[in-house]
Amino acid sequence: MLELRLVQGSLIKKVMEAVKDLVNDANFDCSATGFSLQAMDSSHVALVALLLRSEGFEHYRCDRNLSMGMNLGNMAKMLKCAGNDDIITIKADDGSDSVTFMFESPTQDKIADFEMKLMDIDSEHLGIPEAEYESIVRMPASEFARICKDLSTIGDTVVISVTKEGVKFSTKGDIGTANIVCRQNTSIDKPEEATIIEMQEPVTLTFALRYMNSFTKATPLASQVTISLSSDLPVVVEYKIVEMGYLRFYLAPKIEEDEEMGVHAEAVETKSKTEAKPKKEMKAKAESKPSVMKTEDEEESTESKPLLKSKPKLEIKPDRETNGEVEVEVMDVE
Amino acid sequence: MLELRLVQGSLIKKVMEAVKDLVNDANFDCSATGFSLQAMDSSHVALVALLLRSEGFEHYRCDRNLSMGMNLGNMAKMLKCAGNDDIITIKADDGSDSVTFMFESPTQDKIADFEMKLMDIDSEHLGIPEAEYESIVRMPASEFARICKDLSTIGDTVVISVTKEGVKFSTKGDIGTANIVCRQNTSIDKPEEATIIEMQEPVTLTFALRYMNSFTKATPLASQVTISLSSDLPVVVEYKIVEMGYLRFYLAPKIEEDEEMGVHAEAVETKSKTEAKPKKEMKAKAESKPSVMKTEDEEESTESKPLLKSKPKLEIKPDRETNGEVEVEVMDVE
Amino acid sequence: MLELRLVQGSLIKKVMEAVKDLVNDANFDCSATGFSLQAMDSSHVALVALLLRSEGFEHYRCDRNLSMGMNLGNMAKMLKCAGNDDIITIKADDGSDSVTFMFESPTQDKIADFEMKLMDIDSEHLGIPEAEYESIVRMPASEFARICKDLSTIGDTVVISVTKEGVKFSTKGDIGTANIVCRQNTSIDKPEEATIIEMQEPVTLTFALRYMNSFTKATPLASQVTISLSSDLPVVVEYKIVEMGYLRFYLAPKIEEDEEMGVHAEAVETKSKTEAKPKKEMKAKAESKPSVMKTEDEEESTESKPLLKSKPKLEIKPDRETNGEVEVEVMDVE
Repeated sequence: MLELRLVQGSLIKKVMEAVKDLVNDANFDCSATGFSLQAMDSSHVALVALLLRSEGFEHYRCDRNLSMGMNLGNMAKMLKCAGNDDIITIKADDGSDSVTFMFESPTQDKIADFEMKLMDIDSEHLGIPEAEYESIVRMPASEFARICKDLSTIGDTVVISVTKEGVKFSTKGDIGTANIVCRQNTSIDKPEEATIIEMQEPVTLTFALRYMNSFTKATPLASQVTISLSSDLPVVVEYKIVEMGYLRFYLAPKIEEDEEMGVHAEAVETKSKTEAKPKKEMKAKAESKPSVMKTEDEEESTESKPLLKSKPKLEIKPDRETNGEVEVEVMDVE
Repeated sequence: MLELRLVQGSLIKKVMEAVKDLVNDANFDCSATGFSLQAMDSSHVALVALLLRSEGFEHYRCDRNLSMGMNLGNMAKMLKCAGNDDIITIKADDGSDSVTFMFESPTQDKIADFEMKLMDIDSEHLGIPEAEYESIVRMPASEFARICKDLSTIGDTVVISVTKEGVKFSTKGDIGTANIVCRQNTSIDKPEEATIIEMQEPVTLTFALRYMNSFTKATPLASQVTISLSSDLPVVVEYKIVEMGYLRFYLAPKIEEDEEMGVHAEAVETKSKTEAKPKKEMKAKAESKPSVMKTEDEEESTESKPLLKSKPKLEIKPDRETNGEVEVEVMDVE
Repeated sequence: MLELRLVQGSLIKKVMEAVKDLVNDANFDCSATGFSLQAMDSSHVALVALLLRSEGFEHYRCDRNLSMGMNLGNMAKMLKCAGNDDIITIKADDGSDSVTFMFESPTQDKIADFEMKLMDIDSEHLGIPEAEYESIVRMPASEFARICKDLSTIGDTVVISVTKEGVKFSTKGDIGTANIVCRQNTSIDKPEEATIIEMQEPVTLTFALRYMNSFTKATPLASQVTISLSSDLPVVVEYKIVEMGYLRFYLAPKIEEDEEMGVHAEAVETKSKTEAKPKKEMKAKAESKPSVMKTEDEEESTESKPLLKSKPKLEIKPDRETNGEVEVEVMDVE
């Protein structure tokens, strides 16, 4: 039996609003540790990871590990019916094919039960190894959201460059170019307005603004966002959920072919790292199974040096392809 | 001559916003008693009744009874031009084919006259007999509006069940089920937040959420809504207008055929009471004239026991039909 | 080199929001005097004139006169990326084909540079002679905006009549008529709520509401609007920009043919003054060059009495034509 009671119910409402447009269907995993979710977006370009630790719930009962497949759009519809001050309880009986969301108003005068059918979703749990990042930027979440929104009125991609002095966001489009620089700034009075840069090495990476904008739907969850960047790793955009955990988004950088390869630039402008540098160690371990991230099994066998043999990487394809048919077998491990 | 001056002009603005989407054209009736309206919605399923008593007006002059046919959309357009603090005066000369709405700003610096052509609308005045209801629920209008809106994200109909403890609103749809219970709660501090149940008998009735949602557009008119329910009567959803009267909506319940008849459930899921129980006394008096409610004449002849011979009833049809062509002769009494 | 630093950057954001839908492309003129713009709307019916005087800028450097052709929609897109409290600097190098907008946040922690390509736009500078107006109305800008919006729910044109007592705005449409009177009112306490009428002669003129509504997008710029009216002149709708200058809109009146000519009223309802009174001195000087307003050259030659020989006039055409193809050569003076 599962029964998770969250006094600050609006938290899970905000989480759903943040991820429902990115991911259609996904498994929520419940264990003694907490309530978590990990899923690729529908075009298999970005990855979402949510953790709500058990300690953050007022009441947390999870008799055995449970994986519940849900349509996130439908789940969001139901949670939207909870008041912002409501206490939300997630309930499921053992072996049941449905989950119940219970909403209690603060005065207990209004009690709602929403029951939703669960789905069978084939997916493997992708291991995301901890990594050292060359640059980590922490800045106000609303500032980051504003920058991504502003830049996408000008161009389609953002170049993020980190130096000791600050972080620069740039774009280019038909109507011109834009550069926005945020300087390091450690406001002691208002820590939520600080911009703090931890830099081992300067880094410059390019990302699709469409995804960045989608990630910033998590802005209501946290006052600050943390952006972790390394040349050969997907960026991590993290929103911490106070006393509970986090909502993280992973996105692989784009490669500007004309910059790094200098050929065929007209034909195909951007390609994934994997495609662009096929000889390097980032290459998929088994050619026949182009796993997006390594599975749990793989993680065990490469535990000590996860970044060497099978670094986490996300397949980035030119926009033409990600909008069309992509290989769904990436997620299906028989 | 007619001249009705309403200091709180925003009242009539709110009334128009509440009914303009439900009713296209209707006759407003002016008499010494007050300014009133009674009309079926365009698909002849719901009935709207408005009363603004003469005592509520600052100045009320109505030399003789007058029926003014108006297009409610156009009237709403004109009234929208009044400021929220404006004094509104409705004026018509005897025998004139137009009505004038005058708006005076509180400072008297801005005076507007809007003149609208009247229409000839054929309609009979339907008698709505007073009835005893098995259950009467009074609750915050905004709460009721929120519930109807929330449930309609899940399903098309709402089942309202009243017991001594509270009132339950339920629905069912493709993505799951929802139950919302509001408990009896007599807040002495905040009477506008009370939920009060007067129950003679428990009652469970099903209604189309589409209409309920339409009724809740009257929410700005009153802090509380009163829902009066009886098994064989249309529900009355009433918004009281302080010191003036009321805006009432009537809607016949749906019958879940598979529950009460157990046959043909797959073919036609819901039918009106009239159709489902054709042998009972609710049957239309004259088969050739399927009047939606009885006319004034009928009312006189059955005055003493209106609920026995010709109870008020509204024709409910499966959605397929109400959206298509319906017999308009229902309203035309030659 | 050009460098204009405006501490109150939101001013220029508001200007762009006010004109971007009216004018597509236009030349901004920079001189020692200030930063200005003068352009016809895309259907050559209305004229916009902006002046931001050099004294209003914190820093104003303009080495030589410069005319910069910009797409106003793109410029507005870029300026929308400035925060409302940002300092905005407009920069251009001599001979450069681009302009840079720099936005500095109040704390200097965020600095943005937006660079936009300039365009070559053929246009002549139209001289707008100062004129004496028969009636000048000053009223709250939000009141004027509300009236134009309200009237356009009823009709397409507004008749503005000024008398000593006040100003009347009237319209007529399929659903009826509307008259709104604003009385002279000199609030000493709240000068921004005053309505002040300076009248030499009463005047009654008709204008297209579509344009009036477009002008009122400048409402956020000023608490008061000034409307200057004369029988034979385009109306001037002016929003003063505190300590900097103004944003002015010019629009030629419509002639109700059936009132003044009494013929062919069914066929063509409204015509421009120019078309309706072809024998008068307002006639275009050279038939082969139907200039909308006179060019700088013309202005010189008629300097002393501009209102006699070539009064400013705007071509008004029936709506049917202004929405279709109009002669663009009006602006192209070879």
